[in-house]
Amino acid sequence: MVVKVGVAKLGNIASGVMAELLLDERADREDMMTFMATSGTKLQKEDVDRVVSNLKAWQPDFAIVVSPNGVLEGPVGAREDLKAAGIPTIVITDDVTTKKEGWEALKASGFGYIIVKADAMIGARREFLDPVEMADYNGNLVKVLALTGAFRKLQMELDKVIDQVKAGKKGAEIELPKLVLNSDNSTKGEFTNPYALAKARAAYEIASAVAGVNVKGCFMTKEWTDYVPIVTSAHEMMRAAADLCDQARELEKGCDGVIRKPHKKTGEIVSKVALISKPE
Amino acid sequence: MVVKVGVAKLGNIASGVMAELLLDERADREDMMTFMATSGTKLQKEDVDRVVSNLKAWQPDFAIVVSPNGVLEGPVGAREDLKAAGIPTIVITDDVTTKKEGWEALKASGFGYIIVKADAMIGARREFLDPVEMADYNGNLVKVLALTGAFRKLQMELDKVIDQVKAGKKGAEIELPKLVLNSDNSTKGEFTNPYALAKARAAYEIASAVAGVNVKGCFMTKEWTDYVPIVTSAHEMMRAAADLCDQARELEKGCDGVIRKPHKKTGEIVSKVALISKPE
Amino acid sequence: MVVKVGVAKLGNIASGVMAELLLDERADREDMMTFMATSGTKLQKEDVDRVVSNLKAWQPDFAIVVSPNGVLEGPVGAREDLKAAGIPTIVITDDVTTKKEGWEALKASGFGYIIVKADAMIGARREFLDPVEMADYNGNLVKVLALTGAFRKLQMELDKVIDQVKAGKKGAEIELPKLVLNSDNSTKGEFTNPYALAKARAAYEIASAVAGVNVKGCFMTKEWTDYVPIVTSAHEMMRAAADLCDQARELEKGCDGVIRKPHKKTGEIVSKVALISKPE
Amino acid sequence: MVVKVGVAKLGNIASGVMAELLLDERADREDMMTFMATSGTKLQKEDVDRVVSNLKAWQPDFAIVVSPNGVLEGPVGAREDLKAAGIPTIVITDDVTTKKEGWEALKASGFGYIIVKADAMIGARREFLDPVEMADYNGNLVKVLALTGAFRKLQMELDKVIDQVKAGKKGAEIELPKLVLNSDNSTKGEFTNPYALAKARAAYEIASAVAGVNVKGCFMTKEWTDYVPIVTSAHEMMRAAADLCDQARELEKGCDGVIRKPHKKTGEIVSKVALISKPE
Amino acid sequence: MVVKVGVAKLGNIASGVMAELLLDERADREDMMTFMATSGTKLQKEDVDRVVSNLKAWQPDFAIVVSPNGVLEGPVGAREDLKAAGIPTIVITDDVTTKKEGWEALKASGFGYIIVKADAMIGARREFLDPVEMADYNGNLVKVLALTGAFRKLQMELDKVIDQVKAGKKGAEIELPKLVLNSDNSTKGEFTNPYALAKARAAYEIASAVAGVNVKGCFMTKEWTDYVPIVTSAHEMMRAAADLCDQARELEKGCDGVIRKPHKKTGEIVSKVALISKPE
Amino acid sequence: MVVKVGVAKLGNIASGVMAELLLDERADREDMMTFMATSGTKLQKEDVDRVVSNLKAWQPDFAIVVSPNGVLEGPVGAREDLKAAGIPTIVITDDVTTKKEGWEALKASGFGYIIVKADAMIGARREFLDPVEMADYNGNLVKVLALTGAFRKLQMELDKVIDQVKAGKKGAEIELPKLVLNSDNSTKGEFTNPYALAKARAAYEIASAVAGVNVKGCFMTKEWTDYVPIVTSAHEMMRAAADLCDQARELEKGCDGVIRKPHKKTGEIVSKVALISKPE
Ligand SMILES: [Mg+2]
Ligand SMILES: [Mg+2]
Ligand SMILES: [Mg+2]
Ligand SMILES: [Mg+2]
Ligand SMILES: [Mg+2]
Ligand SMILES: [Mg+2]
Ligand SMILES: [Mg+2]
Ligand SMILES: [Mg+2]
Repeated sequence: MVVKVGVAKLGNIASGVMAELLLDERADREDMMTFMATSGTKLQKEDVDRVVSNLKAWQPDFAIVVSPNGVLEGPVGAREDLKAAGIPTIVITDDVTTKKEGWEALKASGFGYIIVKADAMIGARREFLDPVEMADYNGNLVKVLALTGAFRKLQMELDKVIDQVKAGKKGAEIELPKLVLNSDNSTKGEFTNPYALAKARAAYEIASAVAGVNVKGCFMTKEWTDYVPIVTSAHEMMRAAADLCDQARELEKGCDGVIRKPHKKTGEIVSKVALISKPE
Repeated sequence: MVVKVGVAKLGNIASGVMAELLLDERADREDMMTFMATSGTKLQKEDVDRVVSNLKAWQPDFAIVVSPNGVLEGPVGAREDLKAAGIPTIVITDDVTTKKEGWEALKASGFGYIIVKADAMIGARREFLDPVEMADYNGNLVKVLALTGAFRKLQMELDKVIDQVKAGKKGAEIELPKLVLNSDNSTKGEFTNPYALAKARAAYEIASAVAGVNVKGCFMTKEWTDYVPIVTSAHEMMRAAADLCDQARELEKGCDGVIRKPHKKTGEIVSKVALISKPE
Repeated sequence: MVVKVGVAKLGNIASGVMAELLLDERADREDMMTFMATSGTKLQKEDVDRVVSNLKAWQPDFAIVVSPNGVLEGPVGAREDLKAAGIPTIVITDDVTTKKEGWEALKASGFGYIIVKADAMIGARREFLDPVEMADYNGNLVKVLALTGAFRKLQMELDKVIDQVKAGKKGAEIELPKLVLNSDNSTKGEFTNPYALAKARAAYEIASAVAGVNVKGCFMTKEWTDYVPIVTSAHEMMRAAADLCDQARELEKGCDGVIRKPHKKTGEIVSKVALISKPE
Repeated sequence: MVVKVGVAKLGNIASGVMAELLLDERADREDMMTFMATSGTKLQKEDVDRVVSNLKAWQPDFAIVVSPNGVLEGPVGAREDLKAAGIPTIVITDDVTTKKEGWEALKASGFGYIIVKADAMIGARREFLDPVEMADYNGNLVKVLALTGAFRKLQMELDKVIDQVKAGKKGAEIELPKLVLNSDNSTKGEFTNPYALAKARAAYEIASAVAGVNVKGCFMTKEWTDYVPIVTSAHEMMRAAADLCDQARELEKGCDGVIRKPHKKTGEIVSKVALISKPE
Repeated sequence: MVVKVGVAKLGNIASGVMAELLLDERADREDMMTFMATSGTKLQKEDVDRVVSNLKAWQPDFAIVVSPNGVLEGPVGAREDLKAAGIPTIVITDDVTTKKEGWEALKASGFGYIIVKADAMIGARREFLDPVEMADYNGNLVKVLALTGAFRKLQMELDKVIDQVKAGKKGAEIELPKLVLNSDNSTKGEFTNPYALAKARAAYEIASAVAGVNVKGCFMTKEWTDYVPIVTSAHEMMRAAADLCDQARELEKGCDGVIRKPHKKTGEIVSKVALISKPE
Repeated sequence: MVVKVGVAKLGNIASGVMAELLLDERADREDMMTFMATSGTKLQKEDVDRVVSNLKAWQPDFAIVVSPNGVLEGPVGAREDLKAAGIPTIVITDDVTTKKEGWEALKASGFGYIIVKADAMIGARREFLDPVEMADYNGNLVKVLALTGAFRKLQMELDKVIDQVKAGKKGAEIELPKLVLNSDNSTKGEFTNPYALAKARAAYEIASAVAGVNVKGCFMTKEWTDYVPIVTSAHEMMRAAADLCDQARELEKGCDGVIRKPHKKTGEIVSKVALISKPE
C-alpha cells in the first residue's frame, strides 16, 4: 500500500519548507507519496480554494495545512474545507499559543496540530529584508529546527499517522498529533552528550525569543531608524542560535555520538550512533 | 496586471526550495502571483502528469520546472509538455554541464535555463543521511547559494521575465534566461569589500567540488565502510563553504557594506548599502 | 571638594561587583571617595544593620544599595534606614519589573533606582553550580553588561549624582536616577558600526531571557535530572550573549570605532574614538 | 558554630572581586559569614584605618587583606594592624615575587599569603582604559582565574582555614596558607582531558606574561603614541588567554568531564564529574 | 651504519620545505644523515648541474629530487643524472597526473615517486603575492599536509627506503616508493575519531581543488582586475582547508586520540595515543 | 649583475625554512641567485666543513648562516670559516640575547646578525613530538613570523645587502644588518588598523614566551608525566599566537588595508594596499 499525503502550503514558515523532504530524505521510500500545492504568499479565498480543490481532487489519505499564524481566516478556511471533505487534517504552524481564543478553538477541534514555537517570524521590514537576507535567515532557522530535534519530532509524528493508514485506519479512526514543540520536548532523546543537549536547549530558547523581537520591530515600532536595528538584532539572535546548534553538533561528533534515524525504503525507521556502523 | 508564475518541482534541489520566496521576500508584492505543485520525490509518468496538468489548468504566463539532473526523462517530459501547451518554460537544475548530450540539447532548445553549479547533490547514503542530516545540509547549502549571490542572480533573471510579461510580451516574444551560474557570475557585483568577494568565490568553488565527492561516495564506491567517510567529508566541505560565506557576510557588516535589493509592492527592485538608509 | 559615596552590598549581582570600579577605572580620581561594606550573602536583620550603621557612621553624601531582587525585606529595610538618616539613596538591582506591587512602590518612592534587566540570576543548583561555574558565569555577565553599554549608562547616572553634590546640592535637592536598563537604552550611542549595535542588542535580549530559564530551573522544576539540563542551558545562553558582545567589539575594532569615555582626575568625563588619539 | 571571615579590600585585583563569593557560591552556607569593607581605591592612612577599625570591631575569626602590590605601605599597615589585634591574617595579592625585599619579608612573616601570578595589572592608561575597557578586561581575567583552577585553589585554602576554626583552633594555632599560584599548582587536578589541562596551562602562562607588557606600557614608555599600542596588546593577550580557557572548558564538556566541587550548606565540599549525577 | 640521504631541491613546494625534518623531528637520530642542496628558484642547466654534482660528490645511498611540476626538463635532467651515477632516486613533486605523457613516462621509469596532489601551486601574481602572503600560504599548506596525514605517508615511505639500506640492500635492489597521495591514502589510519577523519578528507579535497583555481588565475586569465580576485579566493580556500585540519586535530584532542609516531634515536618508529603515555 | 647569495643551514629554525623564498616569492627575480646547502641536523665538524666548503667553492657575494642557538661551536665555526675566506657573513638565529657572553661577542664582531626572538624552540620531547606535531608547530610559527612582520623585516635587511652588492660594494664595504627582532620593531609599519597591530604585537609576545616554557619542559623537568603537559602547553601557546595573527590579518582584510610589498623581476620592491590596485 502507498499512503497518499497531501500538503497545502499557505504562506511560508521554515517548518513547511522541509516537511515533505523530512519524510523521505533519500527519495526512495516506497510506502508513501506526497502531493503538495501552494499559492505562494497569496491568501485570497480564490487562491486558497485552488490549492484545496487540487488537493481534494487527489484524494489523499490525510492532509497537512502548513502556514504561519494558523488561526487566521485563510488557514482556518482551508482546514475546515478539507475536514468537510472527510480528509483527516493536521495543522503545522508557528507559535499561536499566545493568541488565546484561536488557540483554544484549535485545541478543542478534531484537527491534529504541531505548533513549532522556535519557528519565529522573520524581520519583514523593507529597509532590511531583501531576498538574500530572507534566504540566509531561513538557512539559519532550518539548521536550528533540524539540529535541536524539532524537525525530528515533527517527522516522527507524521510518520505515526502514515503508519496508522498503512495499518488500515481511516478518517476519524486515525489519531492525529496534538503537540506544541518547545525546548523540552524537541530536544528530548536527541543527544548523547549532556552539554550538547544544553546547547540545543539554549538555541531553542533563543530562537523562540526571536519572534518577540521581530513582532516589536515589525508591528510595534514606527520610526524606521528605530525598527531597523531591532529586526537586525533579531536576525543576529537567530544566527547565534544556529551557532549554538553547530557547537552541539560538533560536540556530538567529538564523542562519535550523533544519533541518526534514517528511513528504509519500506518507511521503517532505523537507528544508529557510531558513524561507522549499520542502522538497525 | 498580475503576472501568473507557475512552478513545477520534481524532486528536490536547494535552488528550488526557495525559488518562489526569492521573488516576494516580504509577501506583499502585488504585481505577480505564483502557483506551485510538486509530486515530492516521485517521478513516474503519472506523478509528473498530475503536476503538469494542474499547472496547465491554471494557465500561467510562464512556468519554471525545477529538478535535480534536468536531463532525465521526468523533467524533460514535463518541460516538453508545458511547451506544447504554449507556456514559456524555464528549467532550473543543478549541474548538468558534464552530461554532454543532454546539455547540448538543452542549450539548443527554446527553453530558458538556469544551471546552478554549486547546488551539489547530497550524500544520499542510508548509513549517513537521515532527516536531520538532510535538513542541516540544505540549511548550509541555502546559506551558500544566498550569500555567494547565486540566489540573487537566479531571482533577477526570473524578475526580468516577469517584467517582460508586464510589458505585454507573450509566448515566444519573451526572452528567457540562458545562464550557467558559476563562481564568476554568481558573485559579481554582490560585495563591497574585495576580500568578502574572494571568500564568497572560495565558498562557491568548494560547494561546486562537493558534487564530485558525493558522486564518488554514492555511485562509485561499493563498501559502506569506504563510502561513509566520503559522504561525511562532502558534508564537511559544505559546512566549510557556509562558514566562508558567514565570514564574507561579517566582513561586509564590518564596513557597513551589505548590499540589499528588496522588492517594492509594485515588484520594482530598489537598492541600498548603509544599514541605516532607505532603499532607492 | 571630595564627594563621599557609600555603597551597601546585600547579596551579589554582577552590576554590584563593578559599581565602584566603574566610577574610577584608573584609581586616580580626586573628586570622590567611596566606602563600601557588605555582609556577604547573609541578610538577617543584624547583618543588614551592621552594614547600614557602618555606612551611616561615615556620613556619605549619598548611598547606593545594591542587591538582587530589590523588593525583598532586606534591601527594602536597608534603604528605608538610610533614607531615615537623611541620606539620598539609589537602589541598583536586577529585574523587579515583573513583581508588580513592589515595583510600583519603588517607582512611587523617593528613591533613585537603576534596574538592570540583563543582570540575570544565576543557575543556583548544587548539582551544577560550584565556585568555578559561578565565577565563569559572572565573567560572562560582566562582559555582557560592559560591552552592551549597560555599565556605561549605570556609571553615567551615578556620575550625574556626584556632579550635583559637587555643585552644592544636598539631600532632597539631588535628582536621583530612575531608570530601567533594557536593550534600547543600554546600547544607545555606544557603537560606531550599526551591526555592532545590532549584535549588542541581540546579546542584551538573550541575557535578559536567561533569567526566565533560570527561574524555571531553580524554582519551577522538581526533578534534578530535569533541572540540571535547564540551568546548564541558561549558562550556555549567557556564553552565547558574551560571544555576541565579543563579535560587536571586534567589529568596532575593525573600523577603529571603539568609543572610549575615560574619567580625568577631576572626575570630568572625556571622549575619544580613534585608538591613536587623545580623549577630549 | 558560624565562622566569621573578615575581608579588607584595598584597591582592586580580580582575585578580590570574587573572594567571598567563591566561599559560598549559592549563598546558602550556614557555617560561616563574611563581612567585607573597602575604601575603594583610596589608600591614605585614614582610609585604611576606617576599613581596618570596622573589621576589628566585628571581631572576625580571621581576616583577609586583598590588594594589588601587597608590599606597599597601605596593605602592609593594614595587616600589621590586624595582627596587632590578634586576628590571624591572610594576604591575597598579585605577583610580588619579583620585588625581592618585600617578598622575602612576607615569606618570613607570620602572615598567610596567596600570590596569584596570573592576576596581571591592567593597562591603566587614560588614552586606552575607560570603564568599559576596565570591566571587559576584568571579565576576561575572572574567566581565566576561574577556568585555570586558580580560584579553586584560592578557595580551597581559605576553606581549610575555616575548617580549622570550626575544629576549635584559634589565633596562632591556625595554619595559614603560604602559596604562590603558578601554572603548575593552579591547574593541578582540575581537568579530565589532558589537552584541556595543556590549554589551561597555556592560558595561565599568557596571563602571567600580561603583567610585564602592562608594566612596560604604564611605567617604562613615555610617548603616548608608543604606549597605547603596548597596553592594547596586553589586553589582546588576556583575551587570547580567556579564549584558551574557553577551549579547555569546551573540551571538558565534550568528554562530560567538567569537575565540579560545590559546597553543601554545612560548608562541606562535595565533588562530581558527569553532568547528570549527584555530587558526593 | 649511518645511511646517507641526499636531497636536491629545485624550486619550492611545501612537501620539500619539510622533507628532511620529517625524517628526524627531534634531531637526534643516529642511523642516518642528510645532505641537501638547492639552487633556489633558478633552474638553468648550470644551476641544476651544481646541485647535482655536489650531491654526487657526497655519494649518498639514495637521493630525493624535490620540485614542482616534476615532468619539466630541469627536474627530469637532475634525476636522469643521478640515475646515471648509480644512485637510486625518488621524485617528490606536486600533481603531475594530469600531464599525461610525462606522467606515463614517470610511472614506467625506474624512479621512485611520491606525488602529493594537495600540494597546490601558489597564487603567483605580483599584484597579490608578496613575501608575507607567500609565507602565510605555505604555513597553511604545511599544516594541511601535516594534519591530513600526507606528510606521515611521505615520511613512512622514505623511512622504508632507509630501512632497506640499513638491511644491506643497494642500488637496484632497493624498492622505491611509487605513490600518488590523495584524500584516501593520505588520511588512512591517521585518526581515532571518524569525524576527524572526515574533516581531514574534506581539507585534502579542498587543498587539491586550489591548484585548479590558481592555474586559472595565473595562466588562463588576462585582466589583472579579473585574476586578482581569483588567486585571492584560492588562498582563502587553503585557509579554509587549514581550518578544517585544525578542527580535526581539536576533535582528536577532545577524545585524547591524537596518534603520535615519533622516531627513536635508532630510527625505529614507535607509536602512542593517550597523551600521558609512553610510545611503544 | 646577478648577486650570488650563499646560505648555510645548520639545524632548523623557522626563520631558516623560508629565508631564500622570502627574497624571491614568485621565483622570477633576475638580479640575484641563491645556493643553499645543509647537513640537516648533523653538526659534527666534518658536516659543517662539507657545507661550508661547498659554499666557498661557489664564491657567493655574501653568505648567511642560519641555525638555532647561534653561539654554539658549530655555527660559530662556520661563520669564522666563511669570514676567513673573505665572504661577508650574516648570522640568523633564534634568541641568544640571554646567553650573555656569546651574545656580547657576536655584537662586537664584524658579522651581521638578525636575532628573531619569537622563533621559539620546539617542544622536543619524544613522548610528544613526532613528525606531524613538528610540522604543525612549524606551520604555526611560520604564520606568526610572516604575519607579525618579522619575516618582512628579515627580508628587507637581506635585500639591503643585495642592493649594496648591486651598487658595487664588496667585502668589508658592505654594511651588514645588526638587528634583534622584537615585538616593537617587527610589527612597525606593517598594519593599517591599529587593533591589528595590537593583535600582532600580542602574538609576538606570546610566541616569545613559548621559548621559556619549552626550555622548562625540555631541560629543567625530569619526570615525563610532568614535562609532557608543559611542552604540550607551549604548542597551545603558539597555536594561540597564530590565531591572533589570523585575527589581525582578517581585520586588515576588513578595511582593505593589507599592505603588500612584492618584488619586481629587477629586485625592486614595490608597494600597495587596496587589493584591487597595482603595486607602485
Ligand atoms: Mg511566524
Ligand atoms: Mg516597510
Ligand atoms: Mg544534484
Ligand atoms: Mg537576579
Ligand atoms: Mg596587579
Ligand atoms: Mg605546484
Ligand atoms: Mg604579474
Ligand atoms: Mg630555538
